[in-house]
Amino acid sequence: MRRPALVALAASLLLACSVASAADTVIPAAAVKTAEQLRDKALHDDTAWNVVASLTTEVGPRLAGSPNDRRARDWAAAKFKALCFDKVYTEPATFPLWVRRHESGAIVAPFPQPLVLSALGYSPGTPKGGLIAQVAAFDTLAALKAADPATVKGKIVYVGYRMHRSRGGHDYGMGSAVRMAGPVIAAAKGAAGYLLRSAGTDAHQRIAHAGVTGFRPGDQGIPAAALSNPDADQLERVLAYGRPVTVKLDLDCGIVGTYTGANVIGEITGRKYPDQVVAIGGHLDSWDPGTGAIDDGAGIAISMAAAKLIHDLPQRPDRTIRVIAFANEEMGLWGARAYADRHAKDVAKFMLGTDSDLGAGRIYRMGASVKPGARHAIEQIADVLKPLGVAYDATRAGGGGSDLGSMHAKGMAALTLNQDATHYFDWHHTANDTLDKIDPKELAQNVAVYAAWSYMAAEADGDFGSAPGAFADDGTGE
Amino acid sequence: MRRPALVALAASLLLACSVASAADTVIPAAAVKTAEQLRDKALHDDTAWNVVASLTTEVGPRLAGSPNDRRARDWAAAKFKALCFDKVYTEPATFPLWVRRHESGAIVAPFPQPLVLSALGYSPGTPKGGLIAQVAAFDTLAALKAADPATVKGKIVYVGYRMHRSRGGHDYGMGSAVRMAGPVIAAAKGAAGYLLRSAGTDAHQRIAHAGVTGFRPGDQGIPAAALSNPDADQLERVLAYGRPVTVKLDLDCGIVGTYTGANVIGEITGRKYPDQVVAIGGHLDSWDPGTGAIDDGAGIAISMAAAKLIHDLPQRPDRTIRVIAFANEEMGLWGARAYADRHAKDVAKFMLGTDSDLGAGRIYRMGASVKPGARHAIEQIADVLKPLGVAYDATRAGGGGSDLGSMHAKGMAALTLNQDATHYFDWHHTANDTLDKIDPKELAQNVAVYAAWSYMAAEADGDFGSAPGAFADDGTGE
Repeated sequence: MRRPALVALAASLLLACSVASAADTVIPAAAVKTAEQLRDKALHDDTAWNVVASLTTEVGPRLAGSPNDRRARDWAAAKFKALCFDKVYTEPATFPLWVRRHESGAIVAPFPQPLVLSALGYSPGTPKGGLIAQVAAFDTLAALKAADPATVKGKIVYVGYRMHRSRGGHDYGMGSAVRMAGPVIAAAKGAAGYLLRSAGTDAHQRIAHAGVTGFRPGDQGIPAAALSNPDADQLERVLAYGRPVTVKLDLDCGIVGTYTGANVIGEITGRKYPDQVVAIGGHLDSWDPGTGAIDDGAGIAISMAAAKLIHDLPQRPDRTIRVIAFANEEMGLWGARAYADRHAKDVAKFMLGTDSDLGAGRIYRMGASVKPGARHAIEQIADVLKPLGVAYDATRAGGGGSDLGSMHAKGMAALTLNQDATHYFDWHHTANDTLDKIDPKELAQNVAVYAAWSYMAAEADGDFGSAPGAFADDGTGE
Repeated sequence: MRRPALVALAASLLLACSVASAADTVIPAAAVKTAEQLRDKALHDDTAWNVVASLTTEVGPRLAGSPNDRRARDWAAAKFKALCFDKVYTEPATFPLWVRRHESGAIVAPFPQPLVLSALGYSPGTPKGGLIAQVAAFDTLAALKAADPATVKGKIVYVGYRMHRSRGGHDYGMGSAVRMAGPVIAAAKGAAGYLLRSAGTDAHQRIAHAGVTGFRPGDQGIPAAALSNPDADQLERVLAYGRPVTVKLDLDCGIVGTYTGANVIGEITGRKYPDQVVAIGGHLDSWDPGTGAIDDGAGIAISMAAAKLIHDLPQRPDRTIRVIAFANEEMGLWGARAYADRHAKDVAKFMLGTDSDLGAGRIYRMGASVKPGARHAIEQIADVLKPLGVAYDATRAGGGGSDLGSMHAKGMAALTLNQDATHYFDWHHTANDTLDKIDPKELAQNVAVYAAWSYMAAEADGDFGSAPGAFADDGTGE
């Protein structure tokens, strides 16, 4: 299946900008016009701002499985209803329950200094009283991979990879690998603990970036935590004296069982084909140090507000707009995978989808994974989004976002809507993920994009190629 | 005494830019030339950077009276010796011992949320288990002052005054008043606790600004803490719902006795008049959340490095350069006041002085409180500093800095050297006060200023007017 799919993609590129043939999917002119109106109205609509303000103020931190997991689900269901969605329901998602009770750290010798750190998801706790060990430092994950196990055995491994800002946030690829794969590699080599320079671009903020490791229940994990950037600088300065450096980690955290939460779903029911859906959303859980404004209150707000604008039209769109507030994205896409497993058999009914999970910065680029016969319709969408500053790149696949990527992996046609992530990783997974980091105008631009494309997809004459196993080779999968 | 002093200042202004008369203090031409060489050399000297890196890396947080108070003094004495100062000694300073053990806070109702806060110096602790009370909110200190005690009795007062950035940092005048006077006013009206929006200009950082209250031992204080700016925003958003808001403060801190620390002093001994001194310095203590880089490792480093440059000249200056690393500035100028009490009788031997305690930003302006006959010498100093971007404002008094202000109040002639404080209050008294906030080039400019003026003052023919009770009415006093 691999080659033909690539050929199909190449063929579709050749057809870019061409006139649609009779068999092609097309967005009717009236729907294009309505989408333009939705787009322009969205730029002056404050629903998304009000939604994310409400979520961060009334619920706040929403660590999956914590008491606020339930409060957040109640909030989401109530908010969908307050926004007059036609249908509101939940679907369960079960996952390991990891709890964070206490965390602290310090350089013990040669220069005693407290360290600002954050225990990583699925990290086990340290022995009571803490773990004290010498540091084995590496600049990169590659250097750790290459290390002789004898050099790290019994030590606390530290990896100092430093992320830098960029619009696409591409350093997070390595930053998240240092956080996820690093502890697993260190544990396999016999390390006693693991520290990394936070996977974050706030070089001067004494705030650590939380995030999940690659450990899963049953793994022989080791205590693992992220240092704030200035604390990593400090540790590296101390290491530069060339003397053995001893660190203490005191983490009270770990997996304590399983928890069943839920994806919370709201729908604007399609008029003609209510069982055919355009899927959008975000994730409802957040890391606990912050209030989950950019990650991912924004995604919840953008998708709820976009659907609400469509709801407020004189009549419902042909197909259903489904907004999914996913459970536990942060610790392993548990809500997304439960959703995809449940709905894989109906993947052909998912016209097109993507969720929003990279903050609230302006969307600047669109990619799509659709059947060749739907490229013209994607170009029609791109034309409507163009005045918003969104460039359509026909060479880029559509991955469907963090959560709906799981449905895309099952064969759902999908978009990628790249947000400007220049500052996203300054605040990502930290106490600093708070409402003040969101620019209401940039948020509204996102809503405009989502309202316009969702409506157009829901009104299309024809489909976008969703089918079991479709798009498996577009490069977005695992 | 008040009028004549003002007249004298006015008269000196009229003389500004005039040629010196025979009785005036003058800096010899050779000393001016040497000062220019010191200035230019300082811009390429890394001693100050190395000193502040050493202090923040090897000692770190230095809360007055904490175990690190002793470590910092040992460090300072060792550093003076390593820099080959001619004389190193200490003079004791005794102060109340306040300790911080634990602090946390939360909005309890209507929306439970943790709050990032920092207990204020001399705050008593809350009852075990915390203090829970309704919030009485005020926008300003004036509004709190005007409040009917019945409206705050038994409540946790919150004052939301917001500081903004400026080069001169003038908002700190009100910011520090909200922190120091606010709790005292609230306590007098029967409040149960006190919260303020941090006296800091980092509008988006989830880091609280510590600092001292106006409480002193024996006062009936109330638990008092500062919220980070985003937490203050959150509290205000919750208050805006118009429902009663309940907050929990859980502070384990308080005054537990007295402590005797010390000012640590290093001297480059004068060749002709060893008992006549030019006094510079900074304070050795810091707030505990950070490592005291800008407050006030920088001041220690600037003054040590300036004196070291003078030390490295082919011969000692005529008078002694005295660098004072003051004890416990942060909780009430205890080291400074002990120093001034001890040396008030010898104030006439202090030629000229000022310490550095506003970070490491470039010095942009100089003021001076000196006798009229020393204005010409100050102009000579100003001419040497001018290429560094320092403007001399003859209408401005010289206050002597945070600590040497106490000697100025006893009659020491003094300078004010204004540093660019645009970002100082972003980090002031927070965990973010770390080495990375210092720009080595800006730090070196400070050293150039201090080396040049200190040397010129030490080489002056004549004095600057220090005498018991002099300058009492220059507007810098209490």
